[in-house]
Order: sequence, then structure tokens, then C-alpha cells
Amino acid sequence: MTILIIAPDKDPEPWISALKSLDPALDIQVYPDEARKADVTFALCWNHPEGVLRDYPNLRCICSMGAGVDHVLSDPQLPEGVPVIRLVDPQLAQSMFEYVCAAVMGYFRDFDAYRAQQEQALWQPRAPRPIGETTVGMMGLGQLGEYSAIRLSRLGFNVIGWSRTPKSIEGITAYAGAEQLDAFLSQTDLLVCLLPLTEETRDILNLDNLRKLPAGACLVNVARGEHLVDEDLLTALNEGTLRGACLDVFREEPLPRSHPFWRHPGIRLTPHCSSLTDPVSVAPQIVENYRRMKDGRPLLNQVMPSRGY
Amino acid sequence: MTILIIAPDKDPEPWISALKSLDPALDIQVYPDEARKADVTFALCWNHPEGVLRDYPNLRCICSMGAGVDHVLSDPQLPEGVPVIRLVDPQLAQSMFEYVCAAVMGYFRDFDAYRAQQEQALWQPRAPRPIGETTVGMMGLGQLGEYSAIRLSRLGFNVIGWSRTPKSIEGITAYAGAEQLDAFLSQTDLLVCLLPLTEETRDILNLDNLRKLPAGACLVNVARGEHLVDEDLLTALNEGTLRGACLDVFREEPLPRSHPFWRHPGIRLTPHCSSLTDPVSVAPQIVENYRRMKDGRPLLNQVMPSRGY
Repeated sequence: MTILIIAPDKDPEPWISALKSLDPALDIQVYPDEARKADVTFALCWNHPEGVLRDYPNLRCICSMGAGVDHVLSDPQLPEGVPVIRLVDPQLAQSMFEYVCAAVMGYFRDFDAYRAQQEQALWQPRAPRPIGETTVGMMGLGQLGEYSAIRLSRLGFNVIGWSRTPKSIEGITAYAGAEQLDAFLSQTDLLVCLLPLTEETRDILNLDNLRKLPAGACLVNVARGEHLVDEDLLTALNEGTLRGACLDVFREEPLPRSHPFWRHPGIRLTPHCSSLTDPVSVAPQIVENYRRMKDGRPLLNQVMPSRGY
Repeated sequence: MTILIIAPDKDPEPWISALKSLDPALDIQVYPDEARKADVTFALCWNHPEGVLRDYPNLRCICSMGAGVDHVLSDPQLPEGVPVIRLVDPQLAQSMFEYVCAAVMGYFRDFDAYRAQQEQALWQPRAPRPIGETTVGMMGLGQLGEYSAIRLSRLGFNVIGWSRTPKSIEGITAYAGAEQLDAFLSQTDLLVCLLPLTEETRDILNLDNLRKLPAGACLVNVARGEHLVDEDLLTALNEGTLRGACLDVFREEPLPRSHPFWRHPGIRLTPHCSSLTDPVSVAPQIVENYRRMKDGRPLLNQVMPSRGY
């Protein structure tokens, strides 16, 4: 019974020590230095190399090391019938909300415009809009989206949401499905993307959809780079459809130095730091699911591969 | 019985229409075009020219057109014995909180550092600190300070406060008086100034006090330019005592184009827009105080000139 960490870009040590501190008897190994492939029953994955999960004949659980599972499900050689689970970390939701709050509140209070004015030593106050007359549109009402939506609503924003299936959240007008997307977008001043990445949501932030926003809207993308069509964002900014975009995720990470996003005045860019999973905070649920797997009990936070999250 | 508006920098029309909509019978005139000085009983003031209030022999109330009264009390020729009142506007407190929230949350989540990294196309994520381990220090716990302090605490920050006299606010550790200032400053990561401007608080943001903050602290000044010693801020930023400062108020406004604040990379600057008094929202309390004055009843929100607020 071995837990195998397959995360080429991550330092495995904090994960090993967080898990061992809960159960020192755990056998934890790190890809590609595992001793016996046949011992591996539980894989902790982040951007695993395509196809490697086929090498473990006794694998009984694949656990994403984050909230997203697109990096697992996108492997065309994913072993069939092995349950995939993800992490649900309340600290992750809080950390994401803080980032979204900083970005949304900054746009709402024109900090981007004042920054541009400062560069020209221009003193030009703008009357702030009442917060209740400013609409934040939350795309994605899963764990992260709902957490942020509720807190933005408590701050005073008018918050609306959009998701694949209808949701009911107090204080938030929720839209659902492709047929209600236009109604949602047409009211949204500040668009926040916290969607899971699926075949249906890939490229959803395209020029057609961005043009449905009120003129001068702002975008905050903290989901995945693949939700956004890069060239379309540049067009939307340059034609004035969008006033600004705050991006934390990109199709290629680190974002290549030659990418035009780095230098566009309408883009504020951060290096995928909106929320970082803290191994100490999620270790208990990993150990819990490992024990459930051993005992043959139902797993927590299992993903439905057919819907993609 | 005339209400006289004395506000050379302001457009009086929105004030007149807000007041008249509540009581069309009001006689409202605008300095310096008033018909008879002896009719003026109630003066609505914002940066009135020094000494002019002496010209109204029957003046019975001086009302500031904002939350601050320093611009009234600083007139050495202020008529003695005429009560001074100020506006207490819940929308003002909300608007101020939004600005403070945008500034504080931006510093907390390193948006200033990421902006600098973006300029160099540098991809360098920083692990966010837990919000509960980040201390916001609120200088001033009046209407505005308390409102923001409570809401920042609800967002998850550890909030402490400092004021002239001891205050008790749930969830906030309150310090008071000169003898507790050092203890307050030494714990403050993000310092927000919402003090009234008095002889005791003028120049309080000086190098001595800024050096008591933990290294790398940030300052948000939304009170008055006179709280801050301009050269001391530049020294504190240049020596690394402070990481950044977000300033909305200045000793001279508009800030002269030659002032070094415009171009300092550690300063983010906005043109006194953190909160603008909305005439519609405050007109009822002006009319109420006007009627109280006519009837000889006690005025609301009267200022104590001896303490300065």
C-alpha cells in the first residue's frame, strides 16, 4: 500500500511531512523514484506526465492536488474505472475570495484609471457609483464561486451568477445553461470566471461573449487560461468593449516573456497566485480518503469524469 | 431666515436642489451673491474664505458640508459662540470603506509587488499570508474609522484600533492615547489613517512614528494631508521602513504637478475621491438641524471646538 506523489513541478516535501504528521506509518513515495509500481494504490497528482497512470496495476484512487481536475481528466490514457477525487479546501476558497475582492474592489473604485492618471500627474476625481448599482457576475458557482459570490454580496455588490445547472444561493440571482448566458452577461459590470475547465467551458471567454457585456466592463479570470481566447481579449480591450482584465491563469505557465499580455496597459497580471493549496490544510482529507479507499468505503469529493468536475 | 452656501470650490446646484426637494419654502442663497447679510442664520460651509463668517450678525449655526470640520475650525476669525455641526452620512462611511478595502486588500495580496514584476515580465508567485495573521491598524475610531474597522475584521483581518479616548468595539483591540501609540504601531502591518485633523494629530504620520511599524508595512491615508509629513514618507519608503503608501489626501489639493509623490514608485495616489458627500443623502439632516436651530432645540452632530471634532 503506497501513496505515490506524481507532481513534476511541485516540491513534494511539504506534502510528505503534512501527511506523515497525521499518520507516520504511511508509505509515501515520489514519482519517478518509487520502489515497486505494484504497491501503488493511491496517486496524488498535479500535471502528471500523460499515460504514466497506466503503469500502476493496483491503482484504486487518483487524487488531484488542487481543486481542479482538468489536468487529470485531460490524459487520454487515464486508467478506466479508477475513481478521481479532488481537494476541497476552505482556506483555498478564502484565499481565492481575497484575490477576487482585491481585483473587483480595485476596478469598482477606479484604481486602474487613477493609476493611469497618476502617470500623467492628472488630478481628476470621479464620483464613485453606489456599490449596490454595480453588478458582479460570477461564472461558476461551485465551492469557490459560491464562497466568493456570497462575500461580494455581503460587501454590498449586486451579485449574479451563472453555472451549468441551476443553483439557489441566498441573495444571488442565478442563471444557468447556455440559453441564459446572454441575459447574465448583459447585466455584468465586473465578470469573474471561476468555472471548472470542461469541453463546454473551454474558450467561453471569447469575443462574441465579451461583446455581450456592458461597455467598459472588467474581467477577472482566476479559473484556467483555457477559458480565455487570448487574441479575443486583446481585441476586446483595444476596441473598448472591456476596460480592463486581471488575469491569474494562462494557457502556458509561466507565461512566456514574449506574450503580449505582459505589456498591455489594460491587463494586470499575476503569476497563478490567487490561491495556493496548503498541504497542511488539506492533508486530513487526503488521509481520510486514503483510509476510505483501503476500507472500501465511499470516497469524498469524487469527480464525475463525464461532466468534467 | 436664509441658508447661505459658502463653498467656493463646489457646485452649489445639487445642494440647493436636494434641500429644496425636501422643503421648497427654504430661502437658500450662495456666497458671495447673497441679498441681505442680516438674513443669514445658517451657513453651509466648505473651505470658506477666512473671516467671512464675521459678516453675518445673525448667524446661529455653521454646518460643514462634509464629515471633517478642520476647514471651519482653522479660521482664526471664526465667530465665537456660534455652534459648529458636521455631516454624518452612512453612505460616506460605506464609500470610505470601499476605498480602504480596495487599498488594504491590494497590499495584502501583493498587487503592488506583482505590478512591479509585470513591468519586468517576471513570473514569481509569493505564498499569501493567512488573512488572520495580517494586522490592520486603524488610526481613528470615529464614525468612519469604526465602520471600516468592523468590516475589515469581518473580512478576516486582525484589526486593532487607536484613538484619543478609549473605545470598545467588538472584535477589535482598541488602544488609546499617546502612551499606547507605540504598542499599536509596532503590531500594525497595514496602517489606515482616518483621524480627525486636530492640533494633536497634525504631523502624526512622521518618520519617528512610521519607524515603529514592522518593516515592510503599508500606509493608507484617507484623512487629511496634514496628518502626514511629506518628506518623512519619502524617507520611510526609500529606506524600506514602508513598502508602499496609498494616499487620497494632500496638504495642497490638487496636488501640484511638481510634487514628488506623483512619480514615486512606492506611492499610489488618488485625487481626494475616497468618499464624496452626496447632497441627496445628507439633505435630510441639514434640514433637520435647520429646523432645530429655528425652534431653539439641541442640534445634532455638534462639534466640540476645544477637541477639534
